[in-house]
Amino acid sequence: MGGPEVDHLISLLARLPGMGPRSARRAALRMLQQPEQRMLPLARALTSAAAAVKPCADCGNLDSQDPCSICADPRRDHTLICVVEGVGDLWALERSGAYHGLYHVIGGTLSALSGVRPEDLNMASLLSRVDEGEVKEIILALGATVDGATTAHFLADQLRPTGVTVTRVGQGVPIGGALDVLDDGTLAAALRGRRSA
Amino acid sequence: MGGPEVDHLISLLARLPGMGPRSARRAALRMLQQPEQRMLPLARALTSAAAAVKPCADCGNLDSQDPCSICADPRRDHTLICVVEGVGDLWALERSGAYHGLYHVIGGTLSALSGVRPEDLNMASLLSRVDEGEVKEIILALGATVDGATTAHFLADQLRPTGVTVTRVGQGVPIGGALDVLDDGTLAAALRGRRSA
Repeated sequence: MGGPEVDHLISLLARLPGMGPRSARRAALRMLQQPEQRMLPLARALTSAAAAVKPCADCGNLDSQDPCSICADPRRDHTLICVVEGVGDLWALERSGAYHGLYHVIGGTLSALSGVRPEDLNMASLLSRVDEGEVKEIILALGATVDGATTAHFLADQLRPTGVTVTRVGQGVPIGGALDVLDDGTLAAALRGRRSA
Repeated sequence: MGGPEVDHLISLLARLPGMGPRSARRAALRMLQQPEQRMLPLARALTSAAAAVKPCADCGNLDSQDPCSICADPRRDHTLICVVEGVGDLWALERSGAYHGLYHVIGGTLSALSGVRPEDLNMASLLSRVDEGEVKEIILALGATVDGATTAHFLADQLRPTGVTVTRVGQGVPIGGALDVLDDGTLAAALRGRRSA
């Protein structure tokens, strides 16, 4: 419907996370009815974001400045580095407002099945940052999956000789979560991680 | 996160139908990780669709040709015009595959509450098309809402002096439902079950 340009636009929109063919059609139609107000601004925003945003050479965060606005912020605690799998995890931690140190995005997890080896991840630069001497603690905030745990073990081993403190984010019952809907692994982790009330 | 370009992009994506702040962040991040493969193609598709797509001067459909590919198709039944509220309804009927006539998009419904009068809708051109003499039947496929029914009554009154047969889709359209969210089978049943207005 609407010619090849519209079909192509719908197929690209449908590939976005959270969109499907139906919502892509609705989005395309809504934009086609107001091309000046809705379509061209989005096209321009995509083009300028693609041009401006680059990975930070220090931490791997995506930002329009390099070093990124987090690495460049003197008010943040530069003795603390939180290691995350991806930029989405970094964004989630930033939204929580609970962390004021720096980050290091390693870009995935080690995986024997998918053939991801240490040299495929952004790990060497983490050791370089630690070697510079300012860092006192590395917080491993990797996913609570088998691969995430493997990666955390590997990193902890690599970091041990540097003498830096290495910690791992706590696992347990999510805030607002009911116990009877949680899986056994989470409940076991919550029991292991119990603290004095 | 990621600078002003990313914040702006996320705010525009979040305004698309079916998207919210969370899915907009995920979509932006996915695209930022592959700007060449995902971001710039979407920007180009938006720009070219905005430039190519215009309303059809005959029926009001949005298409990259004018008259639109439906009006220009000699294999379609040019004695039959289906009147719809919007282009989304036209797309839905086309997907059902149950209709092979022409369309007329009036662009909404009459509404006393919202102050939509006959002259605000694309109605005069429908009467002109009937006056040209080729049309034998007008199918009113308006939403089964109060305003949709009011508009159908009004159009049936306007069309009566021309002597053209006026029918209304009936069976299958749920009360309070909009056409563009219906399944194809229901739309096909609604077309088969049309009655004299």
